[in-house]
Amino acid sequence: MKAQVTVTLREGILDPQGKAVEHALKSLGFDSVSSVRVGKSIEVELNGLSPEEAGKQVDEMCRKLLSNPVTENFSVKLAEPAGE
Amino acid sequence: MKAQVTVTLREGILDPQGKAVEHALKSLGFDSVSSVRVGKSIEVELNGLSPEEAGKQVDEMCRKLLSNPVTENFSVKLAEPAGE
Repeated sequence: MKAQVTVTLREGILDPQGKAVEHALKSLGFDSVSSVRVGKSIEVELNGLSPEEAGKQVDEMCRKLLSNPVTENFSVKLAEPAGE
Repeated sequence: MKAQVTVTLREGILDPQGKAVEHALKSLGFDSVSSVRVGKSIEVELNGLSPEEAGKQVDEMCRKLLSNPVTENFSVKLAEPAGE
């Protein structure tokens, strides 16, 4: 079972990396860009768990390690690998 | 118009950050984790473009700046903001 975790900065938290990318895109001529936010995408592969259990565990992983709940939000998407 | 870009390392490319997260998760007791890969999630906000044009521009941004085509793959998802 695969879980796709996306960790993004909360609204209102400054994102200097996003700002840098935004300026770089504009200087490359992409003038229609109005904002860029950079986050993390984490793919976790889990063995021998039911979808419910996997969801619960990944949620706990996000709270304990993968995200900083003060400054970041996270979302989890579970995907059964093909053929299982 | 919002575009969600996910940049991931290609298969076969070593991911030391993912390995470190995997070990950290295991040492926290998440024994069912078998592999972790860490990538980037980039949210780009664009103004005044049709969906087709936005898709094309974001694709070009990924090739020129957001990803390294030698070591990384990217995927783009376009999302019209509510009410437009």
